[in-house]
Amino acid sequence: MRQFIVLGHEAPTTSEFSLSDLSGGAGRLDVLCRCVNAGLFVSHGIREDVRVHLVLNDEYTVRFDGSTAKHLYPDERAVASRIRGALEARDDAIGHQPADVSPGVKLYRMDFESTLDTVARDGTVVELHEDGESLAEAAPPENPIFVLSDHHDVTDDEAELLAEQADQRISVGPEILHADQTMTVVQNWLDTAGYETY
Amino acid sequence: MRQFIVLGHEAPTTSEFSLSDLSGGAGRLDVLCRCVNAGLFVSHGIREDVRVHLVLNDEYTVRFDGSTAKHLYPDERAVASRIRGALEARDDAIGHQPADVSPGVKLYRMDFESTLDTVARDGTVVELHEDGESLAEAAPPENPIFVLSDHHDVTDDEAELLAEQADQRISVGPEILHADQTMTVVQNWLDTAGYETY
Repeated sequence: MRQFIVLGHEAPTTSEFSLSDLSGGAGRLDVLCRCVNAGLFVSHGIREDVRVHLVLNDEYTVRFDGSTAKHLYPDERAVASRIRGALEARDDAIGHQPADVSPGVKLYRMDFESTLDTVARDGTVVELHEDGESLAEAAPPENPIFVLSDHHDVTDDEAELLAEQADQRISVGPEILHADQTMTVVQNWLDTAGYETY
Repeated sequence: MRQFIVLGHEAPTTSEFSLSDLSGGAGRLDVLCRCVNAGLFVSHGIREDVRVHLVLNDEYTVRFDGSTAKHLYPDERAVASRIRGALEARDDAIGHQPADVSPGVKLYRMDFESTLDTVARDGTVVELHEDGESLAEAAPPENPIFVLSDHHDVTDDEAELLAEQADQRISVGPEILHADQTMTVVQNWLDTAGYETY
């Protein structure tokens, strides 16, 4: 399985936002919506072997699971609607028991540290870093877990947690890309088994 | 310069659509908006050496130019707002003289054939095709021009026009990706000079 954890530093934690104002009133929820798209969608289909975990202001984590997702569409507004639905049910998330919101979408009352600890049990944590090994030279791990940040840099605390868990450090190229674009590049690297199989 | 021509088969040709219904009332304008994002944006910046040409129902072409774009934001709604602005000015596009809508955005009364003919003078047309040479093995041309289609396949006529102009045929991988995802993969291939420079 491939997993992506995306840190949303300017994300809503209540459902009180308008779907018509995702890049303003809802913080920068548009950024996170695009990450769900990059994680789960291919042309006319869903990647069943992918999970995307959106960490909202280090307070909640919304998990999108490709193996059980249904009626999910790739446009920002549609994804945001699912996130809003998850936040509407946030009172149902008690301890580490999630609110089971809609097919393939769950909301956890979990911060980045808890989410990373839990997810890291099932794979190899890969840190994306400009000084890492190049994608072209690195070997894709079997069950990779990537941690990305929204339009803000990771905080010092987040960087420390990540460094503790990371098994591999890779660079995706000389340009600094958006989180969703980085995810797309990484997916292609995995799809081609490290640029070997086309 | 890098150029992308995106064929929108289910696109608006008037400004009579709501920014809150991009994947319904506006055809599938959301798909084209994401292509502008993949073409022009990197983290905290714009790719100045890129042009994206959106062909709307083989009737109009909206050109986004990274070298002159200003106040452009990557979310679907913001990009759609620019396209709507361009369509509002469509009466100003006469012959092959564009309507000059907003910084970096022009609308041409040009179909795919005219757009491809014009753009092809300034570079190498690359066809993306599952039977093409793999990205990992192909050499990036100096001024590449890529033609992509929205969520519909290219028509027979479009395929013929493309085959006439194409100098190179490449495959981006075993998965069939969305147009914007394909653009992101290709940009990374160009950024790294064919997976050589990180």
